[in-house]
Parts: sequence; structure tokens; C-alpha cells
Amino acid sequence: MKTTLNVQGMTCGHCEAAVKGALEELNGVSSVEVHLTSGKVDVTHDESKVKEEALREAVEDQGYDVE
Amino acid sequence: MKTTLNVQGMTCGHCEAAVKGALEELNGVSSVEVHLTSGKVDVTHDESKVKEEALREAVEDQGYDVE
Repeated sequence: MKTTLNVQGMTCGHCEAAVKGALEELNGVSSVEVHLTSGKVDVTHDESKVKEEALREAVEDQGYDVE
Repeated sequence: MKTTLNVQGMTCGHCEAAVKGALEELNGVSSVEVHLTSGKVDVTHDESKVKEEALREAVEDQGYDVE
């Protein structure tokens, strides 16, 4: 399934890479697309392996708020 | 000696770390202090080993403009 997270505080390419990298590390995530200007992060994942709550936590652990 | 660079475009802690790391890698640099909000970067260095031009290049190679 595809989940879109609204992430706040990403300001630069390093932020984009940090969020993308943290999500891609999760087992069950197959692709991540970060839209830096809007803050939207599209995550394609297998919900039986990784649920939205785990995606949110991975982003928050990088220091960003998820709406 | 101490050289202050005016760096543009640093927006977050990742930017700060990238600039600081690139400068600290240079032989002859003994300390680096990044002031994120002002863009000022204070570099203490041995001018016989590393000159201001090399400092500027290291920062620019990370994708930031130096005034």
C-alpha cells in the first residue's frame, strides 16, 4: 500500500536523505519519494510487515514532526 | 590563524555537520565553529598548511556559496 506522511521541518537535501534513508531501512518498505518543498513523503510498503505508525516513528527519530 | 567565512545556504544541523566535517578533514585545520543562523564559520588553521582559498573550496564542494 501507499502511505503519504506530512513531514515538517525538512529544509535541505540532507534532510531529504535522512528521512528517505530511515524509511528505506525498514523491512517491508519498497520505495520512498520525498517532496521537499511540500513536506509530503510517499512510502510504498507492505502493511503486513510495517504499519504507518512505524513509518512515523522512523521519521520522528530523525528529528522531524509528522502531522 | 583564525579565518571567518561567510557561508550562504546552511539551513539545518545536517548542513552544519557537512560544512564542519569538510573543514575538519583538511590538514592544518585545528578547530571549526559553525554559527548556523548567521552563516559565519570560524576556522582556526595553520596558514602554512592550509590557506583560506582551500577552506572556501572545501565549503563550496559541499554545495554552499561563500561570500
